[in-house]
Amino acid sequence: MSDMIKSKAAIAWGPGQPLSIEEVDVMPPKAGEVLVRIVATGVCHTDAFTLSGDDPEGNFPAILGHEGGGVVAAVGEGVTSVAVGDHVIPLYTPECGECKFCLSGKTNLCQKIRETQGKGLMPDGTTRFYKDGQPIFHYMGCSTFSEYTVLPEISLAKVNKEAPLEEVCLLGCGVTTGMGAVMNTAKVEEGATVAIFGLGGIGLSAIIGATMAKASRIIGIDINESKFDLARQLGATDCINPKDYDKPIQEVIVELTDGGVDYSFECIGNVDVMRSALECCHKGWGESVIIGVAGAGQEISTRPFQLVTGRVWKGSAFGGVKGRSELPGIVEQYLRGEFKLNDFITHTMGLEDINEAFELMHEGKSIRSVIHFDQ
Amino acid sequence: MSDMIKSKAAIAWGPGQPLSIEEVDVMPPKAGEVLVRIVATGVCHTDAFTLSGDDPEGNFPAILGHEGGGVVAAVGEGVTSVAVGDHVIPLYTPECGECKFCLSGKTNLCQKIRETQGKGLMPDGTTRFYKDGQPIFHYMGCSTFSEYTVLPEISLAKVNKEAPLEEVCLLGCGVTTGMGAVMNTAKVEEGATVAIFGLGGIGLSAIIGATMAKASRIIGIDINESKFDLARQLGATDCINPKDYDKPIQEVIVELTDGGVDYSFECIGNVDVMRSALECCHKGWGESVIIGVAGAGQEISTRPFQLVTGRVWKGSAFGGVKGRSELPGIVEQYLRGEFKLNDFITHTMGLEDINEAFELMHEGKSIRSVIHFDQ
Repeated sequence: MSDMIKSKAAIAWGPGQPLSIEEVDVMPPKAGEVLVRIVATGVCHTDAFTLSGDDPEGNFPAILGHEGGGVVAAVGEGVTSVAVGDHVIPLYTPECGECKFCLSGKTNLCQKIRETQGKGLMPDGTTRFYKDGQPIFHYMGCSTFSEYTVLPEISLAKVNKEAPLEEVCLLGCGVTTGMGAVMNTAKVEEGATVAIFGLGGIGLSAIIGATMAKASRIIGIDINESKFDLARQLGATDCINPKDYDKPIQEVIVELTDGGVDYSFECIGNVDVMRSALECCHKGWGESVIIGVAGAGQEISTRPFQLVTGRVWKGSAFGGVKGRSELPGIVEQYLRGEFKLNDFITHTMGLEDINEAFELMHEGKSIRSVIHFDQ
Repeated sequence: MSDMIKSKAAIAWGPGQPLSIEEVDVMPPKAGEVLVRIVATGVCHTDAFTLSGDDPEGNFPAILGHEGGGVVAAVGEGVTSVAVGDHVIPLYTPECGECKFCLSGKTNLCQKIRETQGKGLMPDGTTRFYKDGQPIFHYMGCSTFSEYTVLPEISLAKVNKEAPLEEVCLLGCGVTTGMGAVMNTAKVEEGATVAIFGLGGIGLSAIIGATMAKASRIIGIDINESKFDLARQLGATDCINPKDYDKPIQEVIVELTDGGVDYSFECIGNVDVMRSALECCHKGWGESVIIGVAGAGQEISTRPFQLVTGRVWKGSAFGGVKGRSELPGIVEQYLRGEFKLNDFITHTMGLEDINEAFELMHEGKSIRSVIHFDQ
């Protein structure tokens, strides 16, 4: 395929502006690249974070979106791992299999195309999107807010065609991030006690992960009690609102759990909550995992005694999941009914209504809105 | 044995004062307690920290010292694991084998007698030391700056009699702390790269641990270059003085090691160095272990992005070593020649000269001074 095609897309022209639905020109995939027709995409807090202008790596104008599911429409030269018609989930954390990071076996943070991706460009340093001749930046290597998008081959996980893309698109970010942090990063074991701070999409996914890991006690913490019903339905044994207490929430949890939890997860991006999450862990072995992304320049702090007495502070990105080698298996788990995704999808809509999805998220009224491109 | 005995001891009457050599009355061991004749004791920075008055748990008057080696002189009722004549190393971190912490299998931080030990008392809430009828506090459950001292049975590791107590006393704190942090807490593997901040007794012991673990590169960092020769002799491949650079030392190390080290260790107790130690670790998998004890109220901080991108921040106390079950084996390793201790002993002296040991330490002129009670 050598011609450009027209695609419906939501363009972010600048920080703080509503997205604008436009027809863009999508250039054909170059060597090692793949043209994907996006079937559905979730709208994630990270999209909103970048749109707000607070993301130091944000480039404008750009096509945002990074939580999608689609079908391969065309492949560039040399592409062998996917073919036209394959179902794929775009990966904002690629897996090249040959960089120092991939070869380490210790991390999922492939760095092969990190530099260009951070600049909103394809690995060759150019963009595949144009509007009236003006280049439009890619976003997180995905740009799923476009019916057609181009990705590097290493940024695509090929998944079972039986899985509905309108649901498994959520595995492209939020759900995998939360579940993976519990199962891969912390490796929560049966019978463990767990505290999960923030009951948005990531936190609820962490609850699913803790339930799958057979944790004995799963404490959900949020100041928005409307999240508690679903949290309990997914497996939370206790739901706590810090506003109900006149002491630090970490003290409340330490008392509730006879010394603290075995594992905690921060799913908000608030540095004060990150401290609470660490300090509610049990002396001697408690581990706290930071999942949320804090604003630029913000710092975490604690007394070093917290660590010297055995607590561990770590973080997780994309749940520690290696996208190409592990995500297909997670889709199979979903198909076997080991977890559900439709609990997360509170709203669906066409691309035309995508700004409403951002509003619902800002107002705390949605877990995930999913955009269907055929609507 | 039911009578009190007289013992030569160094009393810390108050913060900031020189120790005073006195004859004290030592009460006989009660049930579950053991009277130990101390043969030799190291003088550690923690003793100096408490003596300075900065230790919030410091009690005065007290008999300091916690890095000793001795011989069992008498046992109290019900003591079965040691007998008169056994060689023992006092443990400031006991191992009861039955508290939640010991049973967890995840930590060496036995809490059985934590509360009374922190108050300078034996588990029954009283002291065994008196001077002219005035009670004198215990220290870290050890008080090795006394020829005779009383300890709980659970605070004694019975070791091979062939090991010279004048050397293996150092395994009661510093050497085990540094080696153990490398081998137990971080579990440094063959070929790994390591940075060790602070080349005092702990840092040099961490170098020994890294050498035993067959680390490929061992970078020692100190502003006192007089430590570099011994560091190299023990296995450091690079020695760096941060004062030689006009950029943060973590940046220097990241450049030196193509992205950062696999493991780092903070062996000073300086919260700024703790940050450097974390941030010189490799993205994706680097782990930093805090060993040093910071001053009261001081805090560590970093950007959470450091953790989200795969670094791990943890701590280590007594090298993660379970004293009663693991220290005897470390003494056997020493006897087999797997590591040496005499490199650490820069000065020996009688108890009468103990204040000189503190001065040498303050001036950075000693690694360890060891007090011999028979001198």
